[in-house]
Amino acid sequence: MIVFGVDPGLTRCGVGVIEAKVSRRLSFVHTDVVRSDPELSQDLRLLAIYNGLATRIDEYSPDVVSIERVFAQSNRNTVLGTAQAAGLAMLAAAQRGIPVALHTPTEVKLAVTGNGQAEKIQVERMVARILRLDRLPKPADAADALAQAICHALRPAGALQGGEREQHLTQAQRQWAQAQQRSKRCGPVQRDM
Amino acid sequence: MIVFGVDPGLTRCGVGVIEAKVSRRLSFVHTDVVRSDPELSQDLRLLAIYNGLATRIDEYSPDVVSIERVFAQSNRNTVLGTAQAAGLAMLAAAQRGIPVALHTPTEVKLAVTGNGQAEKIQVERMVARILRLDRLPKPADAADALAQAICHALRPAGALQGGEREQHLTQAQRQWAQAQQRSKRCGPVQRDM
Repeated sequence: MIVFGVDPGLTRCGVGVIEAKVSRRLSFVHTDVVRSDPELSQDLRLLAIYNGLATRIDEYSPDVVSIERVFAQSNRNTVLGTAQAAGLAMLAAAQRGIPVALHTPTEVKLAVTGNGQAEKIQVERMVARILRLDRLPKPADAADALAQAICHALRPAGALQGGEREQHLTQAQRQWAQAQQRSKRCGPVQRDM
Repeated sequence: MIVFGVDPGLTRCGVGVIEAKVSRRLSFVHTDVVRSDPELSQDLRLLAIYNGLATRIDEYSPDVVSIERVFAQSNRNTVLGTAQAAGLAMLAAAQRGIPVALHTPTEVKLAVTGNGQAEKIQVERMVARILRLDRLPKPADAADALAQAICHALRPAGALQGGEREQHLTQAQRQWAQAQQRSKRCGPVQRDM
């Protein structure tokens, strides 16, 4: 399974592509950052981000596109552009019939490091270790996009269904599942509009 | 000049198309609402909104697409979906090389009624009067989209350039221009990300 991770942003939109084998062994495929020129008008910036994402999705033909879930409580200076970039990634996937998954930053940190409050550098180190990279993935947006893809590939089966399967999870997986349930109860503001 | 107004939303996205003659006489062309099913996943809802907007833009070949400017301070329950719908409208316009204008709700009310704090019903009545409609435009999203298009068509020339031309404006136009300048100074959160 090819997982296409997206760390959405209007200035820099991270892309991280991995392959997940049935054995749950994960392999690095690609990472880079789609950028838009802050000097351009907003419509042309969105076009640049959309084109960059669509080109890469076509190139790597993922089985799923996993995108960071954006919350209205996020940084006021960037939240709308971040939400719009996430929307463009969803559009590009939906236009191609590719399923979309959304994972919160807390879910990603838990899945990758076992700690939902992990520091960025911990996430980067674990991304490098899981994908057997020689060096830390750079820049940060690329590392976050790879972590988003890893989170989706490693998600515990019970987490998406809830209920009795959770008792068989490891402690980290259980924390991860609980965080996901909490984020659902809090009603990510994107859901019910 | 054909102006394609958009009142963005993820559940209901208003569309209002008008024709502006050189004489500044405005004529009604079309209005309706693009909808998405709240039961669908967010990516499919965004796809429905994008397809609806793109189809209508292709049908009416506007010279400009005028969209409500979204602020991060807006209703937390809907702001992200609203921003994403606005982003899709910008994308559809940019893909076709059509210029995009953004006007705040206050600018729209000022341009249409002369009062930036006008009630919805006042805006609807003035939209009907300006476009010589037999009845009030319904639903509200359609009226707001027509008002957005009217606002763009009636914008005072000095408002977009600032400076000395403002002294020749009517009081309503001056208020409008000042509101626009204020919204620029406050830094609509979409701009500089």
